Amino acid sequence: MPKPIEYTSASPAVRAVFDDIKSTRRVDDVNNFWKYLANDPATLKRTWESVKDIMAPGALDVRTKEMIYLAISVSNGCNYCIASHGTAARKAGMDEAMFGELMAVVGMANETNRLANGYRVPVDKAFEW
Amino acid sequence: MPKPIEYTSASPAVRAVFDDIKSTRRVDDVNNFWKYLANDPATLKRTWESVKDIMAPGALDVRTKEMIYLAISVSNGCNYCIASHGTAARKAGMDEAMFGELMAVVGMANETNRLANGYRVPVDKAFEW
Amino acid sequence: MPKPIEYTSASPAVRAVFDDIKSTRRVDDVNNFWKYLANDPATLKRTWESVKDIMAPGALDVRTKEMIYLAISVSNGCNYCIASHGTAARKAGMDEAMFGELMAVVGMANETNRLANGYRVPVDKAFEW
Amino acid sequence: MPKPIEYTSASPAVRAVFDDIKSTRRVDDVNNFWKYLANDPATLKRTWESVKDIMAPGALDVRTKEMIYLAISVSNGCNYCIASHGTAARKAGMDEAMFGELMAVVGMANETNRLANGYRVPVDKAFEW
Amino acid sequence: MPKPIEYTSASPAVRAVFDDIKSTRRVDDVNNFWKYLANDPATLKRTWESVKDIMAPGALDVRTKEMIYLAISVSNGCNYCIASHGTAARKAGMDEAMFGELMAVVGMANETNRLANGYRVPVDKAFEW
Amino acid sequence: MPKPIEYTSASPAVRAVFDDIKSTRRVDDVNNFWKYLANDPATLKRTWESVKDIMAPGALDVRTKEMIYLAISVSNGCNYCIASHGTAARKAGMDEAMFGELMAVVGMANETNRLANGYRVPVDKAFEW
Repeated sequence: MPKPIEYTSASPAVRAVFDDIKSTRRVDDVNNFWKYLANDPATLKRTWESVKDIMAPGALDVRTKEMIYLAISVSNGCNYCIASHGTAARKAGMDEAMFGELMAVVGMANETNRLANGYRVPVDKAFEW
Repeated sequence: MPKPIEYTSASPAVRAVFDDIKSTRRVDDVNNFWKYLANDPATLKRTWESVKDIMAPGALDVRTKEMIYLAISVSNGCNYCIASHGTAARKAGMDEAMFGELMAVVGMANETNRLANGYRVPVDKAFEW
Repeated sequence: MPKPIEYTSASPAVRAVFDDIKSTRRVDDVNNFWKYLANDPATLKRTWESVKDIMAPGALDVRTKEMIYLAISVSNGCNYCIASHGTAARKAGMDEAMFGELMAVVGMANETNRLANGYRVPVDKAFEW
Repeated sequence: MPKPIEYTSASPAVRAVFDDIKSTRRVDDVNNFWKYLANDPATLKRTWESVKDIMAPGALDVRTKEMIYLAISVSNGCNYCIASHGTAARKAGMDEAMFGELMAVVGMANETNRLANGYRVPVDKAFEW
Repeated sequence: MPKPIEYTSASPAVRAVFDDIKSTRRVDDVNNFWKYLANDPATLKRTWESVKDIMAPGALDVRTKEMIYLAISVSNGCNYCIASHGTAARKAGMDEAMFGELMAVVGMANETNRLANGYRVPVDKAFEW
Repeated sequence: MPKPIEYTSASPAVRAVFDDIKSTRRVDDVNNFWKYLANDPATLKRTWESVKDIMAPGALDVRTKEMIYLAISVSNGCNYCIASHGTAARKAGMDEAMFGELMAVVGMANETNRLANGYRVPVDKAFEW
């Protein structure tokens, strides 16, 4: 089974990604997700570059993006991602009132998604444009 | 199979919910989701009251909430909900640049959720607080 | 792409399964699901024998089993299965009041599953026995 | 990260919900799910009232409802909910033979849902009514 | 809650399945999955016979089949199945380079599945044949 | 709602990606997925480059990769992706016998994933290495 790869035993290609993560996020070490992905340097590099690009502030601010990331992770039941993006969202400014409302929306969407499925509701013409 | 219930043939209890939806949302008619739920007046009333409560502006604004709702619906593949909340999010101010970034985050979260599962990444101590 | 296989053009092995479905269910023809599975006779036979065994009355009656089948299909968003097991559950005695309560439970379970994930609720000792 | 809120340190609004859960279920303490939801009193109250309403005996008995709740939790892989509703379903009368058949139906539905997806089976006219 | 059933305390019907698993797989003991399923001998027997049939070499070799099994387990977030089929796939010849590419495909498919949902992309005529 | 962007009305950045897809895949036109993604040129470019990289032959051949992509799409119920990757897998050499076995594995994995969840099977020590 894959084991985490630490900086000291990493290849130059992996170290380059770790260095970029550390400088971009201003952290002393990368978190476990990256240490495990380092078993496949191509996936490590591609995933980091995609995450770095997608999570940068743009039309949406970082806090909103992290809350969406957390919402999906909660909906999918990915425990690692709930812990890591729960932390990241809070660092980006999500307070506990926002967290509570985020969870309420995630829960309600999961409920009404199934009600729409079960009642086999056809899409309204007003929504097809 | 359940059929949609129109206002003219609805019971007083269903009409009361329809009236509240129409006045709260300032629309002339309710959308299909509510017409189908009207087959079960208790579920109609409870669902509407929950949605009304949860989606009101609070710690999070309406646009953010609608985007989260859309994100979950996309992740779950609920076609009706993607159409209805895609429309609602745009009405609440989501422009196409925001939509593009929302989709990018939803896609990336679904990808890294699986990478974390597959590599069996243990939660960092820094995320347990 | 796989096409449906009709009885008249089916191999003897496929016909034997179709005959058993028709006599077990007392229907004149098998539904599309079986006609498509007939492209892989081994899967057709194994799936039918498993379904026949699992859905027979036992500790749970047929109506309850069909409602559970429908519940899962709704939760997974499988449109074909919602239509076929929605019909089967009704044939087995599910009335519209039961359907409404079934949908309410399915929706609520999907909601609270996510709330439990998001709040990272640890299992109570009382539930570990 | 959210911490559980115990009765002794809870606000009057949270205590009122806890009291209603305890008296409705005739238990001495609420389980962890409610203690965590108590971080958001509005979600606590709304979720409890919905659960109380939906899970009351109606067209379906409590045992059937708890088994459906368990079925969805198993299908979604929510460990907390599997433990809590597994306990609740057994308290409501589900014996191990019923549990075995419930799991068999949940497993089979998850299998045939994917077979229907993969073979792209069109809905039979007989199921559209 | 179900407890594992060991060979020494198993019924003859369960022992017969355990014996077949051990001889087919050339192992000294069955893994926990089968010990738990043994609580329902009918499900144990049916599941084993289906797995034995499906996972035998055919048009696809065993390594490919185990990798697909692992891919689905990762996508669904089933921790037990990721551990057991991760081991089985490696025994069948999956090396770490193959594992890395497998995870990359699983991640990317989960991402683009959601992009296709979110953009509501209609199926090209060229794909309908 | 997003509309497809055709080559003739595309920006130079979008055309460059379309040209690369067409030359890499040796096709006259890109399929709808890319025309819709073209609404967000950054996502179009990043997604194409990731897909191109991941789906190239490596430790796994293209046919195996396309079958895994199809397996995930079937499990997730993404109709567009089932149609497009079903076509791509067949072009890469998947015959109908392979497709049948692929579906059988996907179905069985979805079934046993839920049985493992429901019986709460603990991971064997032999699988933790």
